[in-house]
Amino acid sequence: MVSCQARLRARYAETDQMGVIHHSVYLVWLEMARVDYCRAAGFDYGRMEREDGILMVVVETHCRYVHPTRFDDEVLIDVRIQEAHPRLVRFAYEVRRASDSRLLVSAETRHVFCNRAMRPTRLPPQYWPLFGIGE
Amino acid sequence: MVSCQARLRARYAETDQMGVIHHSVYLVWLEMARVDYCRAAGFDYGRMEREDGILMVVVETHCRYVHPTRFDDEVLIDVRIQEAHPRLVRFAYEVRRASDSRLLVSAETRHVFCNRAMRPTRLPPQYWPLFGIGE
Amino acid sequence: MVSCQARLRARYAETDQMGVIHHSVYLVWLEMARVDYCRAAGFDYGRMEREDGILMVVVETHCRYVHPTRFDDEVLIDVRIQEAHPRLVRFAYEVRRASDSRLLVSAETRHVFCNRAMRPTRLPPQYWPLFGIGE
Amino acid sequence: MVSCQARLRARYAETDQMGVIHHSVYLVWLEMARVDYCRAAGFDYGRMEREDGILMVVVETHCRYVHPTRFDDEVLIDVRIQEAHPRLVRFAYEVRRASDSRLLVSAETRHVFCNRAMRPTRLPPQYWPLFGIGE
Repeated sequence: MVSCQARLRARYAETDQMGVIHHSVYLVWLEMARVDYCRAAGFDYGRMEREDGILMVVVETHCRYVHPTRFDDEVLIDVRIQEAHPRLVRFAYEVRRASDSRLLVSAETRHVFCNRAMRPTRLPPQYWPLFGIGE
Repeated sequence: MVSCQARLRARYAETDQMGVIHHSVYLVWLEMARVDYCRAAGFDYGRMEREDGILMVVVETHCRYVHPTRFDDEVLIDVRIQEAHPRLVRFAYEVRRASDSRLLVSAETRHVFCNRAMRPTRLPPQYWPLFGIGE
Repeated sequence: MVSCQARLRARYAETDQMGVIHHSVYLVWLEMARVDYCRAAGFDYGRMEREDGILMVVVETHCRYVHPTRFDDEVLIDVRIQEAHPRLVRFAYEVRRASDSRLLVSAETRHVFCNRAMRPTRLPPQYWPLFGIGE
Repeated sequence: MVSCQARLRARYAETDQMGVIHHSVYLVWLEMARVDYCRAAGFDYGRMEREDGILMVVVETHCRYVHPTRFDDEVLIDVRIQEAHPRLVRFAYEVRRASDSRLLVSAETRHVFCNRAMRPTRLPPQYWPLFGIGE
């Protein structure tokens, strides 16, 4: 199964008055890591939404904040699929500081495949191998 | 013509490491003030988008930041229409601290009415009075 | 122990291209509910940070997304303390649509009291009653 | 004088229910372009803030939105200094879609150098060459 590493730099606007990256920002970063995962697995998440009307709707998130991220820190996000069925997928993440690999956040997210009307649906079989389903 | 005053409280997540509200946040606040303006003028912006397919697309913003806003400050936003035609509307704003009316930001935004395909269109006549068009 | 209900309206900028409120936004809303909780319990979170140098640092968040929130929906957030010690506090939340009390999101967050240097510290005793500690 | 090109990819969380990047997001992107400009000019904006206590406070922004950006579009931001004195600096920007160089947004921002207390101050002379001051 594909694993993937996303890379980004903490933005000034993402800091708060504690002088660290606000905890809500990591959910945005995890989403970027999922999009990168899709690209690495050989498909385009935006096109799946647009052309096949398949949405990967977030139904659960769980984050543990281990160490703060500072403005302009470069971070690496390791993302992998923990579990995947035609109806749901679970991702696990480790967000690390690039300079010294220090763990900043570990997280999991759970998603249900939905159609454009936001109703649960089955992932079309052509996408199964990309999520490691049926292997 | 309707004028309107929106009220909100600065959020922690909206601060940055300077200890003040990040300058990008004011554009979000101005948008809230426009939605409140529409409500005060007697219509529902969300419904206009959903049911009539009329979008009020932002084509220009101009903000002058006079004084910083701090976390948990209550602010008042005065919003009024500067100019309105069936194809465009311009709003002007003053963002003030509620406790002492100190001016924090003054701003203008310009909008073009568009259809769902994001192409410029004419505002349907039933909405003209609400924007003060044809008075 | 104090419980508290925060009220807010979903912003346009908080929607995403699925047409619903982005899942990261709820963490910002939960934070607002905590600030309102502090106000209802009789203290000012901002002042505690500023004057006593006590930060309530988020160390864990867990959200279950039950039903999407739409632009301009009014929501109510019930917040209560699940557990509190001089070193940590856990909050639980239910985010509901105001119009029909439909549950949108349930969540928990865990926080460690830290000093300005972001090191764990003990909550000063004058704040204990406000968190229901030592009752 | 240094000019600089920043590169980024539009995030899902940055879209709104119009299906395009929300107009407030560009101010965040322009800020990233300024940080990249500083790096290209040979200094670290974060360190200037931290070690010399010099903040580049935004006092005016002006954006013209020419064409919408979509989720996952790669964009390039050309940034250059329009004017610089020891007390203020003005930047100009062009945000373009990477795939076809289409202009998406043009913008200017004006900044005043401030000390940690957010009071206007003079930029220390060692930074002048980096902003093209005194050339």
